[in-house]
Amino acid sequence: MEIKYAVIGTGAIGGYYGAKLAQHNKDVHFLLYSDYDHVKNNGLTIESCDGNFELKNPNIYNDIRQMPKCDVILVALKTTQNEVLKDYLPHITHSKSIVIMIQNGLGVERDLANWLPDLQVCGALAFIAATKIGKGLIKHIDLGRIMIGAYNFERNELLQQVTADFNESGIPAKLSDDLQRARWEKLVWNIAFNGPTVVLNALTDRLMKNELSRKMVYDLMLEVIKGAQATGVAIEETYADKMMAMTDKMKPYAPSMKVDFDHKRAMEVRYIYTVPIEVAKASGYHMKKVEQIEEQLRFIAER
Amino acid sequence: MEIKYAVIGTGAIGGYYGAKLAQHNKDVHFLLYSDYDHVKNNGLTIESCDGNFELKNPNIYNDIRQMPKCDVILVALKTTQNEVLKDYLPHITHSKSIVIMIQNGLGVERDLANWLPDLQVCGALAFIAATKIGKGLIKHIDLGRIMIGAYNFERNELLQQVTADFNESGIPAKLSDDLQRARWEKLVWNIAFNGPTVVLNALTDRLMKNELSRKMVYDLMLEVIKGAQATGVAIEETYADKMMAMTDKMKPYAPSMKVDFDHKRAMEVRYIYTVPIEVAKASGYHMKKVEQIEEQLRFIAER
Repeated sequence: MEIKYAVIGTGAIGGYYGAKLAQHNKDVHFLLYSDYDHVKNNGLTIESCDGNFELKNPNIYNDIRQMPKCDVILVALKTTQNEVLKDYLPHITHSKSIVIMIQNGLGVERDLANWLPDLQVCGALAFIAATKIGKGLIKHIDLGRIMIGAYNFERNELLQQVTADFNESGIPAKLSDDLQRARWEKLVWNIAFNGPTVVLNALTDRLMKNELSRKMVYDLMLEVIKGAQATGVAIEETYADKMMAMTDKMKPYAPSMKVDFDHKRAMEVRYIYTVPIEVAKASGYHMKKVEQIEEQLRFIAER
Repeated sequence: MEIKYAVIGTGAIGGYYGAKLAQHNKDVHFLLYSDYDHVKNNGLTIESCDGNFELKNPNIYNDIRQMPKCDVILVALKTTQNEVLKDYLPHITHSKSIVIMIQNGLGVERDLANWLPDLQVCGALAFIAATKIGKGLIKHIDLGRIMIGAYNFERNELLQQVTADFNESGIPAKLSDDLQRARWEKLVWNIAFNGPTVVLNALTDRLMKNELSRKMVYDLMLEVIKGAQATGVAIEETYADKMMAMTDKMKPYAPSMKVDFDHKRAMEVRYIYTVPIEVAKASGYHMKKVEQIEEQLRFIAER
């Protein structure tokens, strides 16, 4: 069975995974806007730590209505753009299609399944360092594995085949029944650093160095862990200490929200802050300090 | 009995109250530094909504060791300078002297009484709008009453006489047994606005207009009220609604901490944030959102 793939959001993540699949002769269809003309003329280039490669003539589109119905839709948009999926997906899905949300945060699968209840939705976490450094040009710096979990349907043959396709294409891929745990674990760091680096206009190292902001970051991590625990995801409090130690070793780093803010792009507040706060609250735990960061971000975003 | 007054901190508040007393023939001695030469040559001028006046030859000093022993010391320093009192006060006090701390926040009396245990300490809250607009030049815009409370001694004749002197001099003054309540009430507004206007770089109106920062401000007020309640000061939660309504009616306003920050002066974090947080915590209530504002302010202050 040949799977037809769509990539919605051909940035660093979507572009890299789609290109790897296409490089290994999978049938991949990319939606692009600003890079369309460039890629039409010059192809898609991946500068990868595993070896550079190029797709001379990828299947590209700048209009969702021109795309074929696909079996698997890889969504790698910024979550701030997710609302377009309500319009997009009906054009390119059939009754057995699977949509894989390769995004950060919590609740992206839930929202999509609410908008389009007949859709088979998966979530995925990408463990990869990659950046789009120019038109049709993606730099893959490190890592690359992906963890996929079915959200509202039973793991089926198509999903097994997707995993096999990924692995055949040089992308270490695993199906997981514990995507929520992985999402919450990633949130521990993301919540503690994405908002504070924006609110306090500082990179990670500065927040780690000042005694009180370091305490703030640590308290945020503990709140997220307690929020996770309330929802039944048993992350231990020592996980916060691990994340602190890891961050101490990192070079000064701008989390994606800080990068978005500095480039005057929309920040992913909803899925990194608002939904986790709501979900934890519904389970009886109020992440107060996290909530205050969300409030500050909403104020800053409006300004 | 003629009381000898010292004014330590001849800014808007100390300058105004001292000048009013001196204008009514009380014996007032001012400590000044940067304004000393100007006042020596030109006197002290008060432009007041109640009528302008001038002190041609006030008793002024630029060296604490030249000052006489005084019966009553009015301290109107920024609280960030309070540590100098350890050195200053022994020079100008005798065994019956009373020190009146006319300052915002919580804990200024406690710290002073710890540093100099033999001292008779009072706290005071000034309800006044006044600004120092130039050397030796104070603009009194509105209000003026003062509430004084003894901290570590029984209300005595000297303190009654001070109140009488103030009232004779056109300063509505009252002795209170509930200074802690008045301090906590003032903290409800001060905590909710002083830090957030610095952290989010915005005046009061902007914080009131955005839905989420408005909620943040309101939540901070509720935390302070719960903190006060924990310490036995029964402020009702509706007090927060009153403060919100009052702020909605105010013109765009920069709280003192925002003014200090914008002028690169030290911020009064300790007595407006740190001590209230500690005191509430010792009584069993953790003001988490207030604590996070404190952490952010400490980070910003260091930067």
